[in-house]
Amino acid sequence: MTQPADDSHLVEHTVRREELLAGNFLKVVRDTVRLPDGGSGTREYVRHPGAVAIVGLTDDGQVVLERQWRHPVGRVMIELPAGKLDAGEDRLACAQRELLEETGYTAREWALAGRLHPCIGYSDEFIEVWFARGLTAGERRLDAEEFLDVFLARPEQLLEWCLDGMVTDGKTISCVLWLQNVLAGRTVLDWRVISPS
Amino acid sequence: MTQPADDSHLVEHTVRREELLAGNFLKVVRDTVRLPDGGSGTREYVRHPGAVAIVGLTDDGQVVLERQWRHPVGRVMIELPAGKLDAGEDRLACAQRELLEETGYTAREWALAGRLHPCIGYSDEFIEVWFARGLTAGERRLDAEEFLDVFLARPEQLLEWCLDGMVTDGKTISCVLWLQNVLAGRTVLDWRVISPS
Repeated sequence: MTQPADDSHLVEHTVRREELLAGNFLKVVRDTVRLPDGGSGTREYVRHPGAVAIVGLTDDGQVVLERQWRHPVGRVMIELPAGKLDAGEDRLACAQRELLEETGYTAREWALAGRLHPCIGYSDEFIEVWFARGLTAGERRLDAEEFLDVFLARPEQLLEWCLDGMVTDGKTISCVLWLQNVLAGRTVLDWRVISPS
Repeated sequence: MTQPADDSHLVEHTVRREELLAGNFLKVVRDTVRLPDGGSGTREYVRHPGAVAIVGLTDDGQVVLERQWRHPVGRVMIELPAGKLDAGEDRLACAQRELLEETGYTAREWALAGRLHPCIGYSDEFIEVWFARGLTAGERRLDAEEFLDVFLARPEQLLEWCLDGMVTDGKTISCVLWLQNVLAGRTVLDWRVISPS
């Protein structure tokens, strides 16, 4: 039993939406909802365009990683390349763009591994997880106000860092679940040869 | 090389903070920062008290899970029990409280597995990951406006759901990385017998 046919005892229905914040970067709304018991409640959350994260594997089996200051948590974080979708952007095209812009790598083959919602309590963001291989190094093209280091690590090392607390970025930890199971042969990816966009 | 001594080419310094939103539930600030190159930028993010997630294991080796409507993503999600810290609350006490309130279970033994930041782009939230075993079922005590189903699943089943897209909650996927490696004997937890609080 995982998806009962009738979820009516759980589902909430939006009856009103107000915009709470239209910041330079963050959009926040408040929905008034009808609760499953007929009562009323409010739900506040960030509206996000969605994002991609990239597990890039070099020909010698290393993972492409970044070190980047993350202001909300006030520290330099080790994480996989990732970025937000532009309006109307295809997700694979976004993954290709972000990998190139942030790390300089282009990839010959791509595979969609899965999807996660990083913050279901207060954001509608989703992250598509793409694997990339057949990498070629090149010049990166960082946005203004973007500062990050790129480095390579072995998957075993990255897994250790997730388990021992060196890596705490949620999307990276989630992606390592796919990485571990792909490398163990438990998950088989559907690789496709993709021309650079 | 993972943590160079000098991060000055990455670090941003807060020069001003303004409160952008004080909602019923969400608090958002905008920091003006001095960038590593001396320029100026702004960073908007949610201020969050922190949270815990619980991997509760029954004596026959099943995992305690929930099905809950998550309004921001507009669907019923399968996820591990979790909840926000109350002001000044001890994290283990929070894990005990949330497990009891949401599922009715109390646990004899607890172990801290790790920590993650679910949303480093726009939230300061951290989630501590606690494992619990020696479970005893009892009456749950849901908050008002809280509606959720509790069920059990085998760890193998939960892992499959994460890999195949049935489970997309980021904290749950991250916790399953610990679960898989704990069950495989790769990660050894420091279990402690804890009296109910």
